[in-house]
Amino acid sequence: MSEQVFAEVSQEALLKIFTLPEAPDSTLGKIEKHLSENLMGFLGEHIVAREKPLHEIEQNFCSSAIPEQPRYVSDHTEFLLNNLVAHSVHTSSPRFIGHMTSALPYFLLPLAKLMVGLNQNLVKIETSKAFTPLERNVLGMLHHLVYGQDESFYKRWMHSAQHSLGAMCSGGTVANITALWVARNLALPASKGFSGAANEGLAAGLAHYGYQRLTIMVSERGHYSLSKAADVLGIGRRNIIAIPTDSHNRIRTDKLLEACTEVAETGGKVLAIVGVGGATETGHIDPLNELADIAEQVGAHFHVDAAWGGATLLSKKYRSLLAGVERADSVTIDAHKQMYVPMGAGMVLFKDPSMVRAIEHHAEYVIRQGSKDLGAHTMEGSRPGMAMLVYSALHVMGRSGYELLIDQSIEKAQQFAEMIAAQDDFEVVTEPELCILTYRFVPARLKAAIQAASPEQTKRLVPHLNALTRFIQKRQRETGNSFVSRTKIKPDQYHREPTVVFRVVLANPLTTPEMLAEILQEQRDIANQAMSLRAALFTEMRELGLVHAVG
Amino acid sequence: MSEQVFAEVSQEALLKIFTLPEAPDSTLGKIEKHLSENLMGFLGEHIVAREKPLHEIEQNFCSSAIPEQPRYVSDHTEFLLNNLVAHSVHTSSPRFIGHMTSALPYFLLPLAKLMVGLNQNLVKIETSKAFTPLERNVLGMLHHLVYGQDESFYKRWMHSAQHSLGAMCSGGTVANITALWVARNLALPASKGFSGAANEGLAAGLAHYGYQRLTIMVSERGHYSLSKAADVLGIGRRNIIAIPTDSHNRIRTDKLLEACTEVAETGGKVLAIVGVGGATETGHIDPLNELADIAEQVGAHFHVDAAWGGATLLSKKYRSLLAGVERADSVTIDAHKQMYVPMGAGMVLFKDPSMVRAIEHHAEYVIRQGSKDLGAHTMEGSRPGMAMLVYSALHVMGRSGYELLIDQSIEKAQQFAEMIAAQDDFEVVTEPELCILTYRFVPARLKAAIQAASPEQTKRLVPHLNALTRFIQKRQRETGNSFVSRTKIKPDQYHREPTVVFRVVLANPLTTPEMLAEILQEQRDIANQAMSLRAALFTEMRELGLVHAVG
Repeated sequence: MSEQVFAEVSQEALLKIFTLPEAPDSTLGKIEKHLSENLMGFLGEHIVAREKPLHEIEQNFCSSAIPEQPRYVSDHTEFLLNNLVAHSVHTSSPRFIGHMTSALPYFLLPLAKLMVGLNQNLVKIETSKAFTPLERNVLGMLHHLVYGQDESFYKRWMHSAQHSLGAMCSGGTVANITALWVARNLALPASKGFSGAANEGLAAGLAHYGYQRLTIMVSERGHYSLSKAADVLGIGRRNIIAIPTDSHNRIRTDKLLEACTEVAETGGKVLAIVGVGGATETGHIDPLNELADIAEQVGAHFHVDAAWGGATLLSKKYRSLLAGVERADSVTIDAHKQMYVPMGAGMVLFKDPSMVRAIEHHAEYVIRQGSKDLGAHTMEGSRPGMAMLVYSALHVMGRSGYELLIDQSIEKAQQFAEMIAAQDDFEVVTEPELCILTYRFVPARLKAAIQAASPEQTKRLVPHLNALTRFIQKRQRETGNSFVSRTKIKPDQYHREPTVVFRVVLANPLTTPEMLAEILQEQRDIANQAMSLRAALFTEMRELGLVHAVG
Repeated sequence: MSEQVFAEVSQEALLKIFTLPEAPDSTLGKIEKHLSENLMGFLGEHIVAREKPLHEIEQNFCSSAIPEQPRYVSDHTEFLLNNLVAHSVHTSSPRFIGHMTSALPYFLLPLAKLMVGLNQNLVKIETSKAFTPLERNVLGMLHHLVYGQDESFYKRWMHSAQHSLGAMCSGGTVANITALWVARNLALPASKGFSGAANEGLAAGLAHYGYQRLTIMVSERGHYSLSKAADVLGIGRRNIIAIPTDSHNRIRTDKLLEACTEVAETGGKVLAIVGVGGATETGHIDPLNELADIAEQVGAHFHVDAAWGGATLLSKKYRSLLAGVERADSVTIDAHKQMYVPMGAGMVLFKDPSMVRAIEHHAEYVIRQGSKDLGAHTMEGSRPGMAMLVYSALHVMGRSGYELLIDQSIEKAQQFAEMIAAQDDFEVVTEPELCILTYRFVPARLKAAIQAASPEQTKRLVPHLNALTRFIQKRQRETGNSFVSRTKIKPDQYHREPTVVFRVVLANPLTTPEMLAEILQEQRDIANQAMSLRAALFTEMRELGLVHAVG
């Protein structure tokens, strides 16, 4: 039988989709084989390179009616191939270096299928059994990676019902929210005449403790999820205090101390200091030990957002970049970033396994008192068994395998920075610390003058340069051979003018120096087509007296 | 090559795991084939029936050290098979009728693998492209299912950048939190001299509007995630006001009105009224139209938690059970429950597509102003492309296919209730409205006396009956042939004494009446072994004069 028959609605036909597998020679069967045998080939073959405008794609996804009649799986699959897969993003392409999504190790694909087939629900042991100790084990391994406690510590706490070394979650945002939720409840605990903010609410907590407000201190490079967390938790986005950074995109601890003092003097309470453990936009890491000192001094929760950079701890060579992370009260790490696990594997770790008591929940039919159900200490309820993929990746690649990947990424970024610096018509904007760097294109014969421009001149030049960078990035993306992302930062060397830059993340182990050279050449070619933008820049520079007319 | 070689840590070996697929005759290759050809056979073969004690399973998951050296994929896979898969839960077994996890249609397995292989990140178009319109389409289809707006409505809003018909998320808990987050921010909006609670925080919002507190009203059958939401959002768990239910487990609207009045009179603001659209424990649905009236009257956000029951809207025959849901401001539906999609597919829908502006977020490198990036309106950041599975399930099964599944589930529950009622030694505790019901075992010759017991007598009998129910449920689970869950409710007929009951969810289309009869027989057999518990019950009844000694 080469086709799954569910064209007529009948009891019998219906049961078949639950009992009869797709035949190997069905459309879906063939796709699966192709995926198994040659994922890169499949993606390369099915994802079309040149970008189709979004509004055209939307035409295929605009019917709000749920189809009345069933459809053959093969017909539907053909539709998906032509309209969804064809216009999806080749995130595992070694030339897709703009975001944090990389190639995946092959063995995770069949394991992911196994995970889906098992369809466990990690909220409780009754629907996950061995997956619960496995997830606790994964949290233990990552906790050990960060905090390095001794064996007796893990023996005591890893599988303890009332404790948790952390929480797996869908991603870094939920991890950050969870960490700050715990911090908020711990900062406003039950005391005489007050049953705690978790129970009575935030306003009652502030009133009881006499605080005007809670604030969260983080550098201006902090991830936007922290502002989202402040909103969700009722703290308020404006109480995220963005602290200026130094010329290396690291938090200025002098400014942090000043800001903490000001919060205290105006009746506020510094709830948390958040260290950036690999900035999303530039990859830089805050001086975590200094932040730990300040957090101790002001009595704040110390959280490190290492969603991106946390995996660096797997490298003996580079883990010292995160020195001080072991002093954090909580740490966010995303396994779907530099741990090469599919999307949906975030986690937060807690130094003290009893911290999660601050957010403990129970119900009558699950996560009862005393049970080891993971749901008692997570923000999410029902959750898939993603921990299995993290566990497997850690075992199959081993720490030393990860070390190779991570060292290679960091060193590739250093090489790319050197390559860029060696070009006449590009300039590195932020040097890489991990495997992220930013740069931009600047016409060769204007480069020296642009770099020497005064603050006032820079202010006038920047819009033109920004327009050029945007144009190149957009055109390159649309052409579909390669992809870099862009962001806007305020570099010291450009007098802190908001500057649009290319941003690359070099985590894909299949990206070669040759590909990087090709990407620069492609950007140069696009820049050379941007005649009017270049002319406008040139005119501006001539008016500023920075170049002389050449005709 | 039958084995993936990554035993030595070398650059070359490392790249192989990203470029060389698992061979078909490798351990993992064979597993995958088995999964594809016969999922049920695979699960039946590999999951051991008899429960291994948790503390023994934990022994295999207790090392906190990340292994230093890489490991063969096949060795690791063998480990997983023996220690994880063997002791996972057979959630798709037709005899596993205790929770909401059912069998999955076969075609979703290869599609899930395709989804993982594509590894899109739905936070932004740059990492998801066609997946973004697809997800907006899925939200549109479900919005249409709930609200039934006309074509022009969906044409206008479905793909609008500043709007959203809802948000996909990992599950119902995040969906409920998102709905109440929106409601909270809308209740405390910007006004003269106040930039809104999202920005200034909850306490400032309460002060500005002169509210003592916000409250969320829901029946005592409301899901525990609502209390979690109240905690996360800073509202406080005690401000979830649990309204009593009637004898059918539906909210008592007279009591609700009284409670709303009391909140207002004591300076509080009723933030939201939450209707239960299929109670987790009993399956009952609140009178949604009446709740909508009251919500209008008191000016509260009306949210319906239809995480479980929402799929009933796909049945023409039974959708009227949810009449009034179309008046809700927001609705939670989990596709991984009665829509037969794998774990991780929750969603919240918003009646008014501009509501999500209350939680809108932007950043410089993604979800920029004006972009159609989904991340601007979701609580989560990076997210996988689960929407593809919902989309596919809706197309392959069609509304009429779902109707069959849902009607069959509801009618199977009715049949099972009749079967239980016909036994001498069982009794239905809550009749099914959807496909959930609760019941318990009662020794045949004591049944009449127990049912006739006075409130005082019931209070003394209940601990014995509860112990017996717990014993049966636990033993049955450990034996591993079948699984029912248990919960504790306060039924009118037992004078609202906290009563432990068996809870079954009959959503698996492969569950047959014969299996249900076998499950009862197994419970009866276990009950017959519980000599001391039965003796204690008998003694208690004799002391109460409810039975006479027989020796």
